[in-house]
Amino acid sequence: MGSTARRVSLTGIKPTGEPHLGNYIGAILPALRLADSYESLYFIADYHALTTIRDRELMQHYTRSVAATWLTAGLDPDRTTFYRQSDVPEIFELNWILACMAGKGLMNRAHAYKAARDRNREAGKDDLDAGVNMGLFNYPVLMAVDILIMDADVVPVGRDQVQHVEYAADIAGSFNAVYGDRFKFKIPTAVIPDEGSAHTLPGTDGRKMSKSYGNTIPLFAPEPSLRKLVRRIPTDSVPVEEPKDPDSAAVFKLLERFGEVDVVADTRARLSAGGMGWGEVKAHLADALVAEFAPLRERYEALMAQGSELDDLLAHGADKARKQTRPLLDRVRDAIGIG
Amino acid sequence: MGSTARRVSLTGIKPTGEPHLGNYIGAILPALRLADSYESLYFIADYHALTTIRDRELMQHYTRSVAATWLTAGLDPDRTTFYRQSDVPEIFELNWILACMAGKGLMNRAHAYKAARDRNREAGKDDLDAGVNMGLFNYPVLMAVDILIMDADVVPVGRDQVQHVEYAADIAGSFNAVYGDRFKFKIPTAVIPDEGSAHTLPGTDGRKMSKSYGNTIPLFAPEPSLRKLVRRIPTDSVPVEEPKDPDSAAVFKLLERFGEVDVVADTRARLSAGGMGWGEVKAHLADALVAEFAPLRERYEALMAQGSELDDLLAHGADKARKQTRPLLDRVRDAIGIG
Repeated sequence: MGSTARRVSLTGIKPTGEPHLGNYIGAILPALRLADSYESLYFIADYHALTTIRDRELMQHYTRSVAATWLTAGLDPDRTTFYRQSDVPEIFELNWILACMAGKGLMNRAHAYKAARDRNREAGKDDLDAGVNMGLFNYPVLMAVDILIMDADVVPVGRDQVQHVEYAADIAGSFNAVYGDRFKFKIPTAVIPDEGSAHTLPGTDGRKMSKSYGNTIPLFAPEPSLRKLVRRIPTDSVPVEEPKDPDSAAVFKLLERFGEVDVVADTRARLSAGGMGWGEVKAHLADALVAEFAPLRERYEALMAQGSELDDLLAHGADKARKQTRPLLDRVRDAIGIG
Repeated sequence: MGSTARRVSLTGIKPTGEPHLGNYIGAILPALRLADSYESLYFIADYHALTTIRDRELMQHYTRSVAATWLTAGLDPDRTTFYRQSDVPEIFELNWILACMAGKGLMNRAHAYKAARDRNREAGKDDLDAGVNMGLFNYPVLMAVDILIMDADVVPVGRDQVQHVEYAADIAGSFNAVYGDRFKFKIPTAVIPDEGSAHTLPGTDGRKMSKSYGNTIPLFAPEPSLRKLVRRIPTDSVPVEEPKDPDSAAVFKLLERFGEVDVVADTRARLSAGGMGWGEVKAHLADALVAEFAPLRERYEALMAQGSELDDLLAHGADKARKQTRPLLDRVRDAIGIG
């Protein structure tokens, strides 16, 4: 493939929780910008979530919610391909084929699996595989399939996910070495998006906003709970009239990100000079968040309603995805002598 | 399900070599008799074979060959369901679902995997997983799926395969414990067929006929090679005129199985009395094998020819199989909240 050929990027989205502001700024918006440079595919990795989610309603809710979130955030289902993993059965047949090409040793060294063993070791358990299911252990194979079946050139991932793309390249290489005269998988490359401050949002405690820190602001909270949440952001107890360091406060850092330029400048000046309390800053922040996200929340809620166009959009995306996966699987089957 | 409900048996056939007489007597004929007592399903486990076969033409040949063999041996595709595993995509999606329910510890203790580690240990290798692919390691999960997706009550297996059915029952139990209010898998039972002498055929060296002993007689060898092979069966060097023990000779034991009653009786008498050489016994055996298997070989070769009804029969079997697997997978997907 020359440099003028279409270049494909693939983004996987695991539906395992409610989206928060940090996801939106740090992951969703940067991923959506890929569509400017690549033929971009986005998929909801619902079957990956099955390694941890054992609740039917939660699985259904998170899957719809993550789909509605990305569409709300600007994902254009006509310009890109947006599908649910579980709507593409070819993925699971190829998963078996590539399992037969993947060395078990690779999986033994996979980060997520090793982390599970470390947790068992720290908990003093004799069986380091306690609680580890075969979904977790096979995860890197399925992820390789997700990538390879779509002919992806680049996969934007966090640093902790680079290994998955390396594994996909490794497994593709093993297949190509045996069957390459009939079919060759494209070797994918990991791309680590800019991790600069532009994509890191502080949470309510000033650290990076992350579910694991419990410092998140939900993306589509209704206005009253959003305002309540903002009021509860911890601040220091410097009295209103005294000068304060704006840059030391999570609430100001968040306002800087979402407030109007003149509101931010005025707030910074008045905090530094003294005479402005944190309560007022919080009110500005809440206003800014409501202004920015209320219209998005409306769109999100419309998509989440039963009978919305969400299901049709996903069905349409599955059709588009399978136009790629079905012929590819047929070629793989022919190469290995199946069928 | 009461005792009057349909009872389902499932037999898997791994296409990894040429069928020999021992398979025919010891495995194929007994398995075909299940159709008298059960709603019987037979499937060609071509994707299981992919854990070891990396040759396209060999995979294609073995798959067709094993299908033609069973049909030749009397498998009735109208009365039973006869399909290729790779024609049933639902198997591979359920494979992922049940992987998420299967503890990795189960797989660590699976016989085939442990045997592979033992071989590495004996070979002095540091990495006991050397050469182990994820197909081999996942094998018991896929086998559980083969069984559970067909709602099988009984699975006839050799003693060394009982563990696979126990694993299927275990994995079904794990699923049922979580999602049983919406869908329950039937718990299958292993049935160990009679291993008496009726089903054990001696090989050309007198031991049980088995590929691993290299003492087999191919089922569909052309007449000249069959006669040549029989002539080469080792015998002792007692002269023609001296008495011989018929029961000590593989060639006589084989004749006893395939010869006409009066030929067998006459041969036994003349061997015991002296005056009959092994060459004559071999000629009788070759005649008997040709008489029994030449018509079968003709049918086999007709099925193996390109454009025979073999492909249509398998396509028809896949349709029947999917009438079972598609609704079952839909119910499972609904139970776990996927789709």
